[in-house]
Amino acid sequence: VRAAGEGLAVGLDVGGTKIAAGLVGADGSVLLRERLSTPDDTEALFELLVDAALRLSQGQVDIPVGVGAAGLVSHDGVIRYAPNISWVDEPLQQRLAERLGVAVTIDNDASAAAWGEFRVGAGSAVRSMAMLTLGTGVGGGLVIDERLVRGASGFGSEFGHIIVDEGGPACPCGNHGCLEPLASGTAIGRIARERLAGGQVPAGSALHRLDAVTGKAVTVAAHAGDAAAREVLATAGFWLGVGIASLCNAVDPELVVIGGGAIQAGELVLEPARRAFVERLIGAAQRRPTKIVRASLSDDAGLVGAALLSLDGPAPAGAA
Amino acid sequence: VRAAGEGLAVGLDVGGTKIAAGLVGADGSVLLRERLSTPDDTEALFELLVDAALRLSQGQVDIPVGVGAAGLVSHDGVIRYAPNISWVDEPLQQRLAERLGVAVTIDNDASAAAWGEFRVGAGSAVRSMAMLTLGTGVGGGLVIDERLVRGASGFGSEFGHIIVDEGGPACPCGNHGCLEPLASGTAIGRIARERLAGGQVPAGSALHRLDAVTGKAVTVAAHAGDAAAREVLATAGFWLGVGIASLCNAVDPELVVIGGGAIQAGELVLEPARRAFVERLIGAAQRRPTKIVRASLSDDAGLVGAALLSLDGPAPAGAA
Repeated sequence: VRAAGEGLAVGLDVGGTKIAAGLVGADGSVLLRERLSTPDDTEALFELLVDAALRLSQGQVDIPVGVGAAGLVSHDGVIRYAPNISWVDEPLQQRLAERLGVAVTIDNDASAAAWGEFRVGAGSAVRSMAMLTLGTGVGGGLVIDERLVRGASGFGSEFGHIIVDEGGPACPCGNHGCLEPLASGTAIGRIARERLAGGQVPAGSALHRLDAVTGKAVTVAAHAGDAAAREVLATAGFWLGVGIASLCNAVDPELVVIGGGAIQAGELVLEPARRAFVERLIGAAQRRPTKIVRASLSDDAGLVGAALLSLDGPAPAGAA
Repeated sequence: VRAAGEGLAVGLDVGGTKIAAGLVGADGSVLLRERLSTPDDTEALFELLVDAALRLSQGQVDIPVGVGAAGLVSHDGVIRYAPNISWVDEPLQQRLAERLGVAVTIDNDASAAAWGEFRVGAGSAVRSMAMLTLGTGVGGGLVIDERLVRGASGFGSEFGHIIVDEGGPACPCGNHGCLEPLASGTAIGRIARERLAGGQVPAGSALHRLDAVTGKAVTVAAHAGDAAAREVLATAGFWLGVGIASLCNAVDPELVVIGGGAIQAGELVLEPARRAFVERLIGAAQRRPTKIVRASLSDDAGLVGAALLSLDGPAPAGAA
């Protein structure tokens, strides 16, 4: 755990289906925690975020609010676009700050999660790390020299859209062969369905008996020992490793942290990912290859990171 | 041009076949310039670098020396591996410093070139930029928030080994589908030879009449108007654009600068690169897409950047 600042902050991790909210100490501890469903209506969502922040602040004044939002967030705190929420050019930072009368910071949710892992989680001992979150999509966050890399337009570290197989499977972004359709939780389900449809799954496999062939169901089957399900996870893991190699060849972080719901697959994805990674890492023989580890804050990473970003301010802790 | 420091430095840009050396002012001006051939023998190379530094310093004491070397350079100034020079774990920083009695810094040559373009070239007005050098291979350099990103092990910004077409053409690094075998000068020659062998080049094309189908020869034919040669450059440009999209989705720099010998192709490569890039850039509709421009320091970028790195010291100019 890094040297802690002072105070408390509210962290709001806003996803397409659910919101994780909490009151967080400067040391990253979560003092209060709430899980909420994301309303479809953006005004209802705004009011829900306001109410959550007020409840969690418990009447204390000047508790800053940090938001991690599942979308493209520009430097002026405007959510330009969110694939699973109806926000378009939503000036959420300004609106929340005006309504709550406190300092509000907004970042991409995966960047917030990366900051949480960097400050008080799996990356607390390193100076640079990349985090990939595997869920419906693939998110990313990047810390270099103890600074969160937000990118020139605020759209940095979209690691789900590292292109590893140009012309490969379609990505929701409109491209083909991005990491997202190859290594997300969604991808795990797709790979399994394609193998079933293609007759590549032995008759005895549990995959034939699933009600719905989702990433989660495949992961459960794999943990129960189903060989075909494990091969599916190994395929997603292979692509994850290719994407991480490409990323590490480009920016060479000290550590790679993998989080998100789909990391329930654990070593069944990470082990093949590490193998594909080391084979493709430049100078692997001349250095200790970058470690690839599992996130340690679990579902709290986003809200903790968002809260700490609001406390750490625009020049994050540790910046020279 | 950024605020200049004081003093003079020697810059040595050491490639596999030639060395560009110069005496450089703190404003990036090149006061003296030499071109030398790279000897095969590493001891002869060492003596040649010593002699060049002494000649260029002209007897003045305390002139620091900055080296950009075509290889993997670790943080302790050791060249761990160089694909085209026989160095293996060569402690060049320490050896030069001991022999010359001055401060010596060593970085990867493409990183040095990126620093040169950032400080006094095409990137002098931005805070973050990526540079790709297209030559025999593809090199890279990355500046974020006015700092050169060297990577945790010193092996950062090897943009030639961003993997865009897993399973694609073989790369000298041992992988397949890296940017290097798809968009380097060498790649331009390979693509042309494959099209010739595959009967895809119309009988009238100048490509049939080349003595040697090299990237340079194809580029000359393309500038002379040969349609088949232009298609070859467009293919290399397409892959360059895919690689830049992948890079910009991951780190979102303000500017991308393209240098190296193969950029003689100019807009014949850059225009198709920009088209492939914008189609694949995340949030391209929500922001002004990152500009892709040609380097402005030409062959001097590496020696100027190496010299300025030796003057700027370990915390580069502009670091907060």
